Amino acid sequence: VNARGGSVTTATLDVPTYDDVVRAAERLAGTASATPILESTLLNERLGGRLMIKAEVLQRTGSFKFRGAYNRIATIPEARRSGGVVSYSSGNHAQGVAAAAALLGLKATIVMPSDTPEIKVSSTRAFGAAVRFYDRYAESRERIAAEIASDLGATIVKPFDDPLVIAGQGTVGLEIVQQLLAWGIEPDAVSAPCSGGGLVAGVALAVAQRFPKARIYSAEPEGFDDLKRSLASGRRESNDPSARSICDALLAPMPGEITFAIHRLFLAGGVSVTDDEALRAMATAFRCFKIAIEPGGAVALAAVLSGKIPIKGKTVVIVASGGNVDADVFKRALDRAPY
Amino acid sequence: VNARGGSVTTATLDVPTYDDVVRAAERLAGTASATPILESTLLNERLGGRLMIKAEVLQRTGSFKFRGAYNRIATIPEARRSGGVVSYSSGNHAQGVAAAAALLGLKATIVMPSDTPEIKVSSTRAFGAAVRFYDRYAESRERIAAEIASDLGATIVKPFDDPLVIAGQGTVGLEIVQQLLAWGIEPDAVSAPCSGGGLVAGVALAVAQRFPKARIYSAEPEGFDDLKRSLASGRRESNDPSARSICDALLAPMPGEITFAIHRLFLAGGVSVTDDEALRAMATAFRCFKIAIEPGGAVALAAVLSGKIPIKGKTVVIVASGGNVDADVFKRALDRAPY
Repeated sequence: VNARGGSVTTATLDVPTYDDVVRAAERLAGTASATPILESTLLNERLGGRLMIKAEVLQRTGSFKFRGAYNRIATIPEARRSGGVVSYSSGNHAQGVAAAAALLGLKATIVMPSDTPEIKVSSTRAFGAAVRFYDRYAESRERIAAEIASDLGATIVKPFDDPLVIAGQGTVGLEIVQQLLAWGIEPDAVSAPCSGGGLVAGVALAVAQRFPKARIYSAEPEGFDDLKRSLASGRRESNDPSARSICDALLAPMPGEITFAIHRLFLAGGVSVTDDEALRAMATAFRCFKIAIEPGGAVALAAVLSGKIPIKGKTVVIVASGGNVDADVFKRALDRAPY
Repeated sequence: VNARGGSVTTATLDVPTYDDVVRAAERLAGTASATPILESTLLNERLGGRLMIKAEVLQRTGSFKFRGAYNRIATIPEARRSGGVVSYSSGNHAQGVAAAAALLGLKATIVMPSDTPEIKVSSTRAFGAAVRFYDRYAESRERIAAEIASDLGATIVKPFDDPLVIAGQGTVGLEIVQQLLAWGIEPDAVSAPCSGGGLVAGVALAVAQRFPKARIYSAEPEGFDDLKRSLASGRRESNDPSARSICDALLAPMPGEITFAIHRLFLAGGVSVTDDEALRAMATAFRCFKIAIEPGGAVALAAVLSGKIPIKGKTVVIVASGGNVDADVFKRALDRAPY
């Protein structure tokens, strides 16, 4: 048990536990939204099972990323707060860090590729963050962030491989547990989208504690199924750098060290879906649940709807992890046949 | 006080009260979803006020209509239940009645125009309801429903002008009151879409009881602003039959008798919006709230975003009342500039 209490240090790794997720939930209470779980009677009848959607698209900043960022930033010691925070991301993590830092009164700097779409730059700036551009072909974002951290005394907020970030994302799983217990429902399976794996690791910490029989699956885009292959081989595998996917939130090259330590303990396996399956899942969510999911946020839903995670006669909970999608991409999804 | 308790009979009208809404909420507990209230920090900053969205698009069947239908059908006496229910609607009320009847174990017949789009027919049938077609140019749907009621001993579930239907829709307002009280927030204004006026009447019963200073506005499409004109003239006005709108859920020709008795007591006025304003509000909701609203469900949001309901320095709650929109119409909305 370390200074935060409840964490287990595995060799050199600081791996968070269920208790860390509970503490994160206490920090986030009244600030993060307790997002609803959605169901469709008609879709359930067609699937022959019970599909429950944890709608994190309705979270502050449009994705679960706010939770981990807030939990990390809220625990920065008083003496280091004036230095602010620094992070690197062009997507949902950037907005999560910017919004959490603003709420907690810390300055934030986000390191972004110079070719980041203007809409993502302006969203991040709208939360009050400073944006530092870099050349993604010539510079290292981690090195730039480290320099800013050193120059300003800023604290780096990593996108996934940090015990407090993982514990924050785990509050999604804790809410699922609490909502299901209140309804008297025990899930057969739970699945969440995976890039570096912070979300599915955190969800696993909470779900495995209260529903030890539930099978927990990561969901990834085809070509970015590093966790699926890592779980099969038992060591961290990386993706082919030439791989491409419409799921722009899920392009991390390999699982994190800390996240993978949790995945190995709690996950039943990994599932991957095609871009077409993700787009069809988005069209289905529009039709049946009236929510906008971004491609990467829809991969766990797609894994169920495509039949890769079995649901017949079962209760399956999936996380719809983000909804920050351009109108043009969403229109492409609406042109597909829903499941 | 009549047999249901709490209702007030005004001349020949049976007008529901706040207590009827409370009783409806007790009947609906655990069956209707307590839908979330959504907010966007960035949109609030741009508006210079606090805009809160009651997301009834996330309700069972995709609209608030389930609430009123369930409250009405749940109170049918045992002796009349075997006759089932009959209603007339091609839209959200049809699905609300079909779903509520199925949950309560009653047969349902829905009278629909023979040119109803197949998707709406099949959605209604999927809930187990029988569909009876009629020729909208040669036959009266009310007369057909009355014949079915007489032949089968079925109970008619009216779309809005029924005290139990209004009280059921009022649970939307009761949830708004409870959610705002829990957060310590007092609204300056509340607005809901209006066709026959059941929703905004029910919401007014709940909101006026607990927040007497809040200004309550109906929102209607241009050309279907019968309630706005009725509130101005003091008597029920009707719409020009040649009027057209994309808001297919809001085409009732005039306010109901019972609903208007409530509107006159509690509403500060009516607001109307153009089709373009409704579509732009849908695009804004997609971008800022990650929800799909149908055109008619977006008119109260459009009334705020277009500046017709003032929000600067204020807290305004609006109901996004339904999300049953075809992909093609939604794509048209996404082509508009969001506010």
